[in-house]
Amino acid sequence: MTSPGIPAAPGPAGASPAPTVAAAATGDATTAAASSDGSQPWRLGPVGIVGLGLIGGSLGLDLRRRGIRVQALVHRSATAERARARQLADAVDTDAAVLQGCGLVVLALPLDRLLDPPAELLAALPAGAVVTDVGSVKEPVLRRWRARERFVASHPMAGTAEAGVEAGIPGLFQERPWVATPEAGTDPGALAAVRQLADTVGARWLTCEAGAHDRSVALISHLPVLLGAALIEAADAGGAEAGAGALVRALASSGFADTSRVGGGNPELGTLMARCNREALLAALGHYRRELDQLETLVEGHDWEGLQRALSRSQALRPEFL
Amino acid sequence: MTSPGIPAAPGPAGASPAPTVAAAATGDATTAAASSDGSQPWRLGPVGIVGLGLIGGSLGLDLRRRGIRVQALVHRSATAERARARQLADAVDTDAAVLQGCGLVVLALPLDRLLDPPAELLAALPAGAVVTDVGSVKEPVLRRWRARERFVASHPMAGTAEAGVEAGIPGLFQERPWVATPEAGTDPGALAAVRQLADTVGARWLTCEAGAHDRSVALISHLPVLLGAALIEAADAGGAEAGAGALVRALASSGFADTSRVGGGNPELGTLMARCNREALLAALGHYRRELDQLETLVEGHDWEGLQRALSRSQALRPEFL
Repeated sequence: MTSPGIPAAPGPAGASPAPTVAAAATGDATTAAASSDGSQPWRLGPVGIVGLGLIGGSLGLDLRRRGIRVQALVHRSATAERARARQLADAVDTDAAVLQGCGLVVLALPLDRLLDPPAELLAALPAGAVVTDVGSVKEPVLRRWRARERFVASHPMAGTAEAGVEAGIPGLFQERPWVATPEAGTDPGALAAVRQLADTVGARWLTCEAGAHDRSVALISHLPVLLGAALIEAADAGGAEAGAGALVRALASSGFADTSRVGGGNPELGTLMARCNREALLAALGHYRRELDQLETLVEGHDWEGLQRALSRSQALRPEFL
Repeated sequence: MTSPGIPAAPGPAGASPAPTVAAAATGDATTAAASSDGSQPWRLGPVGIVGLGLIGGSLGLDLRRRGIRVQALVHRSATAERARARQLADAVDTDAAVLQGCGLVVLALPLDRLLDPPAELLAALPAGAVVTDVGSVKEPVLRRWRARERFVASHPMAGTAEAGVEAGIPGLFQERPWVATPEAGTDPGALAAVRQLADTVGARWLTCEAGAHDRSVALISHLPVLLGAALIEAADAGGAEAGAGALVRALASSGFADTSRVGGGNPELGTLMARCNREALLAALGHYRRELDQLETLVEGHDWEGLQRALSRSQALRPEFL
């Protein structure tokens, strides 16, 4: 465990204790072969954050309360003012020069801006700095960014329903997975630096291959958005057809609320995830349709023993995902 | 509002204040035309409860703490012992004679036993008593029970993940809908008595036609079970195919947990609801498939503007169901 404010130097390759999550994921998720070889420890310089929304703002708060200096670049001056008032960073500016001197820069941008970064940002990233991102899809990020020396693709899996400069909260990453997707060409020292960052904010570090990450999040994160949205629309359309539009609304309770929660989430984010992870999402939808077809066939065929077996299997499986 | 322990006598037909839910559901959910004409107020006698699981046990606790005597019939003597230890009722027995003297009897049984009640129970229901049920599907209940004088079909929509004699908790019905589905032949006094019961435990009373109830709960309660179960199976199957079975489990977070919660619930209950509400559930699945097809078509066709419009619509609709 890393002491607050004094991130431990990464140990020699293979000697790092495996975090719980990585240990649980033996077989396809592996711990990083952390190494400080060739790394300039990021804690020697300030951390740069590009974007102070939910993820960037929360990261700023967590780093600052551990005594680490944070310098942040934001797009609009109104955002800069609110970020300063909320003390999300030690320095906040709309001028990319604010990133000067940072040893580690976190690109906490929406996927579309991350995949099409402004030239001014590219020019302002300090030479030699470790650069990482927080995007929820990793293969397109690597296609765009892998050519940059010391880039590490990563994905802290934490969130709330909020977005924007008011959304950042302390402790957001505590015990949440922080996934990195290193490749053969990834700088081991840069990877170790990003792991230090994740450790510092209390996240559970794990690494895996980018394609496996993208297929996994399609199944457990992006697919539920479409299911929930379709459920909301079905309740609306089915209620209207039955002349019971008000009744379905009056009777909907926690089961409906939970099942539809992410389906009623941020439409821009849902669309970006679908756009950037389209093939994996379509594959996930294919798996889902096959399962739903089987359940529907049981109901159509009055096969109540078969349905109970299927639901018992789902009940037994679900705790493996919690 | 009814005072605890002293349920108000129902007013003349049409004079009862409309509860919030009923008011919100104008158009297809209507307030009961409560009337005391011909009713023998149930509060003059003990309340009988058949079955002391989550609903029956919670009801017993709430009535007793309001000073109302509860006499309960259970199936097994071990259950009777635990029910007595938990003080779920004033008298608990496996002999149906325990229901003698009750002016109102609540059949808090699983749907299958409610639809195929033991002869001993039928013989023991006191002549003249108001009888109601708590089943989550109403048309089959009415088909089986409507011939009984003073029967009222009702459905208190409250629950937790627990079941059995240990599951009952105080306050379960507070602010939750309690739906009755009266017909032309329903005794107005009996209906008023059941409304008194719902008021006494703090539930929000509403009435509607049984078919509208069943189609509504298919959409907002039974359909989510199948969606959640299919999601769990899809994550398992898709993870295995991608060689990422452990990874999907490690990365699944609150979005997956919420979307799959009811899908991983009690398989017996899920099967009973599907069996007893099969046609409405198949109709709900039809609506759902059409909505999911539309979303999938947008993703397949790279129609990101269309997808964002659809997700924006779902986001705007969802609060109407909360």
